[in-house]
This record gives sequence, C-alpha cells and structure tokens, in this order.
Amino acid sequence: MILYNDLFLKKEEVHISHEDRGYYFGDGVYEVFRIYNGQLFEKEKHFQRLQRSCEQIKLKLPSSVQDIDLKLSQLIQKSFVQEGTLYLQITRGVAQRSHLFPKNPIPTLLAYCNEVKRPLDKMKSGIKAITQEDIRWLRCDIKSLNLLPNTLAKQNAVEQNADETIFHRNGIITECSSSNIMIVQDGEILTHPANHLILEGVTRSVVLKIAAEEGFTIREKAFDKETLKNADEVFITGTTVEITPIINIDHHNIANGLPGTVTKKLQQLFEKIVPE
Amino acid sequence: MILYNDLFLKKEEVHISHEDRGYYFGDGVYEVFRIYNGQLFEKEKHFQRLQRSCEQIKLKLPSSVQDIDLKLSQLIQKSFVQEGTLYLQITRGVAQRSHLFPKNPIPTLLAYCNEVKRPLDKMKSGIKAITQEDIRWLRCDIKSLNLLPNTLAKQNAVEQNADETIFHRNGIITECSSSNIMIVQDGEILTHPANHLILEGVTRSVVLKIAAEEGFTIREKAFDKETLKNADEVFITGTTVEITPIINIDHHNIANGLPGTVTKKLQQLFEKIVPE
Repeated sequence: MILYNDLFLKKEEVHISHEDRGYYFGDGVYEVFRIYNGQLFEKEKHFQRLQRSCEQIKLKLPSSVQDIDLKLSQLIQKSFVQEGTLYLQITRGVAQRSHLFPKNPIPTLLAYCNEVKRPLDKMKSGIKAITQEDIRWLRCDIKSLNLLPNTLAKQNAVEQNADETIFHRNGIITECSSSNIMIVQDGEILTHPANHLILEGVTRSVVLKIAAEEGFTIREKAFDKETLKNADEVFITGTTVEITPIINIDHHNIANGLPGTVTKKLQQLFEKIVPE
Repeated sequence: MILYNDLFLKKEEVHISHEDRGYYFGDGVYEVFRIYNGQLFEKEKHFQRLQRSCEQIKLKLPSSVQDIDLKLSQLIQKSFVQEGTLYLQITRGVAQRSHLFPKNPIPTLLAYCNEVKRPLDKMKSGIKAITQEDIRWLRCDIKSLNLLPNTLAKQNAVEQNADETIFHRNGIITECSSSNIMIVQDGEILTHPANHLILEGVTRSVVLKIAAEEGFTIREKAFDKETLKNADEVFITGTTVEITPIINIDHHNIANGLPGTVTKKLQQLFEKIVPE
C-alpha cells in the first residue's frame, strides 16, 4: 500500500514521471519514521525536520502537516504494520528538465510502511565500522534526496566486512552514512554539534535528552579520528538502528571490543520510552 | 519519443518505479549531448565521460557504448530533431530502498531529444552572473544526478536577475551551476584545472583545443574571486550555451561591460567546427 499524493495505491499502480524533479535532480526531501506498536515514534520531531528541510530548499509542502499526519495514520492502518518504518518523500514535482524551479510546482508525495524488526542482535553485540573522508555537500542538515555519497559509503563499508561508514572531514568526525555517532570519553558523551555538517537525527536528540536527564555530561563538540579510536565507547544513533554500539573501527577494537556500560545504560533508558 | 531501456515509447507510456534508485538516492549519471544538423556533436567525448562517471560510482552500463550509440541514432531519427539536445541518464535501477547496492542491479536507461536553438542572442550580448559559495560534494567530476545544489544556485541567480551562478570554494573560482568558466587576463586564458572540484566539460575541452591551436596561452590554474572580477574577459562554456560571455558579475560590469575580443575570436573558431 502506497500513499501517492492523495491516493492510496497498490505498488504496481504507482507511476512516477521520468520528468519528476526527484528523478532528474534529487530535488526533494524525505523522512524515515519509526513505527512502534502501530504508532509513529517522535513524529513531531520528524515533521519539524521535514518542514525545515522543505524551507531550506524552498519547497512548499503539498498540504498542511496536519493533513499529512492524518494520511500517514491511515496509511499505517491500511498497511497493518505494528513494528516497522514509514518512508515519506516529497519532490518538487513534474516539469520539463531545467535547473530553474518550475513556475507553479505541484509536489509529488510518496509514502509507505515496511515491517522492520528492531535490530536487537546488533544492538546487543555491536557492529564494525570503517572511516572515510566526508566528501558530501556542506548542507548535510537538509534531509535531501541527494544521497549518492551516502550509498557509496555504505557499499564501501559492506565490501570491507563492516556495517557502517564513519565520515570525517579533514580528520574531524561528523556522522555516519545513515546515522549519527557519539563517543564516551572519561564518562562524558561527545557528539558533533548539530550544524550544517550533520543531519540532526531524531534519535540523536532523544538520546541526548535521556542522557542529560540521567545526569550524564554531554558535550556537543567536534572530535577527531584519533579521539574516536581511543574512546572508551562508541555508538551510533538512528531511527532504525536506535542505539547500536560500534566495537571495531578500521579493523581495530574499541577499548576491549565489547559494548560499553554507558552505551548499555542508554539502551536501557531508551527501552523505557519505546511504546510496547 | 523516449528511449526507455530498449524500447521507444511515447512520453505517457514511460512509467518510472518509485523504487528506482535514481528517485530515492540520485544514484545515477547523465549526459546532455548537443545535436547539430541531426548528429551528436563530440559524441566520443560524451561517451568517454559517461563511462568514467559510471566507473566512479561502480555502475555497469546496461549495454555496450556501441549499442547505446546505435539506439541514440535511432532516437534522433525518430524524434526528427536537427538542432537540439539529447538527454541521457542511467540509474542503478529498481530495488527495495537500501543504501547498499542491490545484488544484481538492472540499470534504467532513459533518453530523449529536445529541439533547442543555439542561444545566439545571449552569445552575442553576454549574460549576467552572481557568485556564491560552492557547497557541492567533492566529486564534481562525476556527472551524477545529485544536482540539488546546482538547481538551488540557478534559481538563486534568476531571483537576482542574473542568468548563471559562479561557484567559488573559499574564494577560489571552480565553475558555474551548469557550465565551466574561463577568464582572459593579459591575453592568456585561465580556467580551473579539471580535477575533482569541477566537471570536465566537453565544450571546455573543445574550446581549450581550438584556443591552443590558434596560439593562445592557456593556463589550467585556479584563480580567486578578485581575479575573476578584475579579468579582461569572462565567459562560460557548455553544451547548450557554447561560448557565452559574462559581462556583469554581482551587479558590476566586467571591464567595459561588453563581450571581449578573445571571447569573440573563440566564438568564431567554434562556429567553424559546428556542423551545418
């Protein structure tokens, strides 16, 4: 079941025009929501970010957030998804190919749900990562459809028997190909500030909030690759990965190569706010 | 008439899957060929660049260049276009959304021709440009579908009553939103080296070749915004714009605000190789 503009269609009924600006230019934005217990998790944060992404690329939402929210609720119901994700993307619509925006664009909205189980095994065991130069554009705060460097980085990770790629810009750690990254150093939690070089993840915000409430010291401060590799703990945050430990980077273990105590504590705190 | 993989279809018969990786990620590459007198201009250079773009993103062409070349010839004939452009794009095909490449991707090829007249008026009168920080990714040598920053820059130019945006990275001029840029300084032609920061334009190569043959000194060397604004002449090169003078940048005239003699000489030389 696909939400295509105002219509609920079967997958095979959805026909995208080759002149959709999403197809020509990646001229659009997206969100991936978590569905727990048939409900969108932290949906206000996702909608706020969606609105911000749209504003930054001067894209008008096809309807109000309230309307979209209602449609997404219907979509979840029609899809019978209890635990999964909801993918939503909006492009600047169909127009003859020209870099210049069309005069009166009619955005294309697309959304659907998938059953996706929580990655409990990896959350427990941790994953491996590699590092790579961050060659993306300088507006990573916009959740746009220009994701080619992210896909190349993810592919590169898997080809090197890792799960994720950690980006660094001139040695400064930014984020990962599809998640944010945090480290624990001397009991403090460090993560890159939410500026133009990273996407401000919803799970990142949630984790910082629950960590602060628990009394952890949080420093939103850039750190370098050396600091990363010598950290006491490393973990990523993301809508589907939640809080997943990174236990090995560039084929070397982090600390003793096991998920750390702060990471596990944060997972426990996160667990409490996951609707059952 | 659209070439869609192996088929010649009418526009309304082309249905792109919403799961095409071109739509989700901009995971694909493209070329815009010039058609003069019903023939592709400098097609070998375009095919070489297409192959290189594909290699760089690990995308396999759906068939041999010879096959594609043949199909494009048929497309031009079926489209009855004598003077225009041929747009060709290839994506990594349809797959369930995942940053990771699909196992055995079947690329989606799309191509069509448009009648586009040579911009003779603008080539004669010159155009206005604005400058803007180059915030694109660091692989601008790949002609990928991740073009959001380029579209935003073009839109910005037009909103400021200009025709094109000139990018600078930390003050160093790279190229424009959809063209390369050259300046004339003390009789010499300067342009940014063809490295990862610019697209190596086909028209750029042609112009450098005919300029060298004419005896001009060419320096493929980065120059800054100050040098640009104080240049004797400024012009852009591109498949559709050919050689177009820039006579005004950021609302200030270049030299006397008229197309320069070297620019006009290069236009004459270019004219000689345009098939009639």
